[in-house]
Amino acid sequence: MSQQSFDHLCAHARETALLQSIAELLGWDERTKMPPAAGAYRAEQMTYLSSLVHRRHTDPQVGEWLEELATSVLAKDPYSDAGATIRQMRREYDKLTKLPQSLVEELTRASVLGQQAWVEARKNDDFATFAPILEKIVTLKRQQADAIGYTDCPYDALLDDFEPGETTKNVARILEGLRSELVPLVAAIADSTQKPDLDLFKRHYPIDAQEVFGKQAATAIGFEFNRGRLDVTHHPFCAGMGPDDCRLTTRYDEHFFPSGFFSILHEAGHGIYDQGLRGDQFGLPPGTYVSLGIHESQSRMWENLVGRSIPFWRHFFPLAQQAFPEALRSARLEDFCFAANDVRPSLIRVEADEATYNLHIIIRFELEQALINEGLAVKDLPAAWNQKYRDYLGIEPPSDANGVLQDVHWSAALIGYFPTYALGNLYAAQFFAQAAKDVGPLDEQFERGEFTGLLGWLREKIHQQGQRYTARELVEKVTGKPLSHDALINYLREKYTGYYGID
Amino acid sequence: MSQQSFDHLCAHARETALLQSIAELLGWDERTKMPPAAGAYRAEQMTYLSSLVHRRHTDPQVGEWLEELATSVLAKDPYSDAGATIRQMRREYDKLTKLPQSLVEELTRASVLGQQAWVEARKNDDFATFAPILEKIVTLKRQQADAIGYTDCPYDALLDDFEPGETTKNVARILEGLRSELVPLVAAIADSTQKPDLDLFKRHYPIDAQEVFGKQAATAIGFEFNRGRLDVTHHPFCAGMGPDDCRLTTRYDEHFFPSGFFSILHEAGHGIYDQGLRGDQFGLPPGTYVSLGIHESQSRMWENLVGRSIPFWRHFFPLAQQAFPEALRSARLEDFCFAANDVRPSLIRVEADEATYNLHIIIRFELEQALINEGLAVKDLPAAWNQKYRDYLGIEPPSDANGVLQDVHWSAALIGYFPTYALGNLYAAQFFAQAAKDVGPLDEQFERGEFTGLLGWLREKIHQQGQRYTARELVEKVTGKPLSHDALINYLREKYTGYYGID
Repeated sequence: MSQQSFDHLCAHARETALLQSIAELLGWDERTKMPPAAGAYRAEQMTYLSSLVHRRHTDPQVGEWLEELATSVLAKDPYSDAGATIRQMRREYDKLTKLPQSLVEELTRASVLGQQAWVEARKNDDFATFAPILEKIVTLKRQQADAIGYTDCPYDALLDDFEPGETTKNVARILEGLRSELVPLVAAIADSTQKPDLDLFKRHYPIDAQEVFGKQAATAIGFEFNRGRLDVTHHPFCAGMGPDDCRLTTRYDEHFFPSGFFSILHEAGHGIYDQGLRGDQFGLPPGTYVSLGIHESQSRMWENLVGRSIPFWRHFFPLAQQAFPEALRSARLEDFCFAANDVRPSLIRVEADEATYNLHIIIRFELEQALINEGLAVKDLPAAWNQKYRDYLGIEPPSDANGVLQDVHWSAALIGYFPTYALGNLYAAQFFAQAAKDVGPLDEQFERGEFTGLLGWLREKIHQQGQRYTARELVEKVTGKPLSHDALINYLREKYTGYYGID
Repeated sequence: MSQQSFDHLCAHARETALLQSIAELLGWDERTKMPPAAGAYRAEQMTYLSSLVHRRHTDPQVGEWLEELATSVLAKDPYSDAGATIRQMRREYDKLTKLPQSLVEELTRASVLGQQAWVEARKNDDFATFAPILEKIVTLKRQQADAIGYTDCPYDALLDDFEPGETTKNVARILEGLRSELVPLVAAIADSTQKPDLDLFKRHYPIDAQEVFGKQAATAIGFEFNRGRLDVTHHPFCAGMGPDDCRLTTRYDEHFFPSGFFSILHEAGHGIYDQGLRGDQFGLPPGTYVSLGIHESQSRMWENLVGRSIPFWRHFFPLAQQAFPEALRSARLEDFCFAANDVRPSLIRVEADEATYNLHIIIRFELEQALINEGLAVKDLPAAWNQKYRDYLGIEPPSDANGVLQDVHWSAALIGYFPTYALGNLYAAQFFAQAAKDVGPLDEQFERGEFTGLLGWLREKIHQQGQRYTARELVEKVTGKPLSHDALINYLREKYTGYYGID
C-alpha cells in the first residue's frame, strides 16, 4: 500500500514538474524572444500556471500520501531515493501549507507593487518613495517567518527558503570570519601600486566572435549544446526546462570582453549542474538541486576558480588570440590574466570582482538580519548601508540609486536570498580544494584543455546526489569538514599575493 | 442569472485559451529553438497540456451553462458577440462530447503511429508498409463521422472540422467548376513557348539581406513586429500565442530567392489576420478566426494576389535591387515578375505554383471522398493517385514517395483538411475583386508602397468579424454572392494571358 501511495506521490510531482518546466520556458521566452507588446498576456499565462502549480503543491491528497508514508519502510533510510523524496516533499508541503492563503496573496501583491516602486525610486534616486512598500514587505516577511516557525531568530525561516537547513547563526559565524580577513586583504590590494591594464579588455571584440568563442569554452568545460542553447538577454540567467533542455543567456559588449565571456562561463556552470542532475528523477528531490548556494558554487567555480586561472588561459589564450586578432595579437597572457583578476572596491554588487563581491553580500546579509531580527527601521536603512560601505569597502555611495536601491531583491520580497551568493563562493573554494586532492593536479589538466577530471568529480560528488543530503551535509560528506571560510580566503590570498605583490 | 452563466462560460474559455496559447509557444519553440535532445520531454509537456485543455473543453459544467443560455435573451441575436459566442461554443462542445473517449484515444494513437510509419514509408518509397495504418485511420475517421453525424455523406462531418458549416456537395461543385477550366488553362501554359528565366532567382541572395528585406516587406503590408517576430524553421508556419504575440517563420535558401521571401509574405498574411482579430475577445469566438479556408485566403492574398503582382514589384523591385545588388543589379522588373509567376505542372504540392496548386488539392479532395464515402480501398490509392495526376496535370509520378506519400496529412489523421487550401485561393480571389471595387484602384496604391487601403478593408470586413458569421455567410456578406470559381479563374486567366501569350 505504501508503495502505491509513493508511486502516486511521485506521479503527482512529475505532473507538477511538467507545469513548472513549462513556466520556465515562458520565463525564458519572456526574457529572450518575446515581442515587446506581449508582456501583459504573458503575465496572465504565468500567473495562471503559478496558481495551478500552487494548487497542486498544497493539494490535501499530497498531505495524506505523506502522512501514510511517514512511518513506512520507504522512509526508513533518509538517504535513499525514496527516503529523500519523502523527507523533502514533506518539508515543502509543510512550509507551503503553513502559509495562510491571505499572506501568500499579500506577499505577491507587495512584491509586484514593490518592484514597480523600486524601478521608479531607483530612476529618481528617491528612497523615500520606496520606503513605505519596503516597510510593508518587511512586516509581511516577519509574518511569514512567524507562520513557518523558527528556533533561533525569524531570519532563520527566511534563509531556509533558499538554503534549506542552514541557520543564520552558522552563516553569520562563517561570513564574519571571512569579513575579518577579507577587509584588510582588499585594503592592501587597494593600496598596492601594481594594477592591471584594463584597456586590454576594452578593445574591439566583435560580437559574433565572442559568441563562437564563448560556446567553444562552454563546450570545453562540459556544457552540452545538444541539450541546451545560448541566447542574449539583459540580465544573464540560466533556465532548465526539462531533463534535456537547459538554456544559458549572456549579454555582449563589443568593447568589454569580460562582460559576455564570464557570464557565459558563469551560466554554463549553472547549466552543467542542471545537465548533471539525474534525468530519471526530474521533478523529484533526487533529481533536483540542493540549494541556491550549491547551485551558485557551480557557476562560481567554473567562472572564477577555473575561468580566471592562469592554467585555463594557457589553453584558451592562444584560441582567444585567433578569435580576436585585432584585440589580442600582441597581448601577453600574464597581462590578460591580471586584468581578469582586477580587484577594486566599487559601488555595484553585480559589477564587483571575485574578492570584494563577498563584502557586498556580507553588508546585505547584516542589514537583512537587522531589518528582520533587530527592528532596524526602513527609514534608517540608507544610512546603515552607507556606513557599512565605508567600513568594509572604504568607499562612500554618492547616491541611494547606486547604494541601497541598486538591487531588485528586497523589492521582490526576496529576503534571505543574498547570503547564498557568498555561500556559493565559499562552497566553491572548499569543493575545489577537495577536488584537487581527489583528482590530482587540475592545473596540468586545464593547461591541456582537459576539464573532464573536475567535471566527473562534480558529477559524482554533487550533481548526481540531487537532494539526498542538505547542503551542509553535502559539504561535510564531500570535503570531510564543515563549511568554513578557510578555503576561500586561502585561495584569494594566494592568488592576489602574486598579482599585487602583497604578503 | 443567464448573464452570470455567460460570464462564467467566458471566464472558463479565457482560462482554457491561456493553456492553448501556452501550448502554441511550446510548439513554436519546438520547431524553432528547442535543443535537439529535448524532444521527448517536450512531447510529455504538450500531451499534458492537451489533456488539460480537453478536460476543460468537455467539462459538463460547460454543457450546463450552454443549456441554460440556449433559451436566454443573450442567444437571441446569433450575430451579436454573446449570440455568436453561445452558438460557436455549443457547436464545439457538442462535437467534442459526441466523440467517445475511446475513439479520441484510438485516433491519437493511430495518428502517432501513422506519422512514424509514413516517415519510413516515404523514405523507402514503400506504400505497402504504410497501407495498414492508413486503413486503420480511414476506418476510425468513418467512425468519427458516424459519431458526429451528417446529412449527406460522412465526409461532411470531417470537412466540418476545418471548414465549419461547409458541405462536401458545395465544395465539390465549386472545385469541379474550377478544375474544368483550370486543366485546359494549365495545359495551354505548358504548351506555350514563352517561359520565364528562372536563373534570375538562383543567383546569390545573402541570407542576412533576405531577412532584412523580408521583414521590410512584411512590415509594409501590415505585420506589426512589436507584436510579433520572424524566425527560421524547416516547414514555415505562423503561430499566434496571445493577442499581441504572433510569430512568423520561414526558411532561406541562399540560391533560391522565392523560397524565403514568399514564405514570409504567406505567413505574414496569416499573421496579419491573427493580429487583426479583436484582442478583447481573445480566446472567445468573436476573437477567433472563422475557418482554415478563410485563414488561408489571407495568406494567399498577400503572397500571390499582392506579392506576385507587377504593381507590388514596381515598389519593391528597386528596393530588392539595393538589397541584392549582385543578383539584381542588371535585372529587369518584367523578367523578375514573370519568374515569380512561372507555371508548370509538377509532382510536389508544396512546391507548386499558384495555378497548378489547386489541381494538387482537387486530386486529394476527390481521393479523400472516394476513401471515406465510396469505399475506395487503401491498396488502390496509389493507382488512383497516379491516374489523376495524368488526367489533370499531364504528368506521371515516378514513385509513391513523390506521389501519394508526399504529404503528412493523412498519416496524421487529417482528412478533410486539404480542400481548405483551395478554398483559400477561391476566397482570396473573390475577396480581392471585391476589395478593388470597394477601396478603389489597389494597383496604384501598391505601386506607391501603400497597402493600408486593402489592409483596412480586410480588418473591417474579415478580421474584426471573428466567428460572427460562418465562412459561407461571410463570403456572401462581404462580396454579395456565394463563393464560386469565377473570381479565381478570371484572375489567373488574365494574368497568364499576358505572360504566356495565350488567349
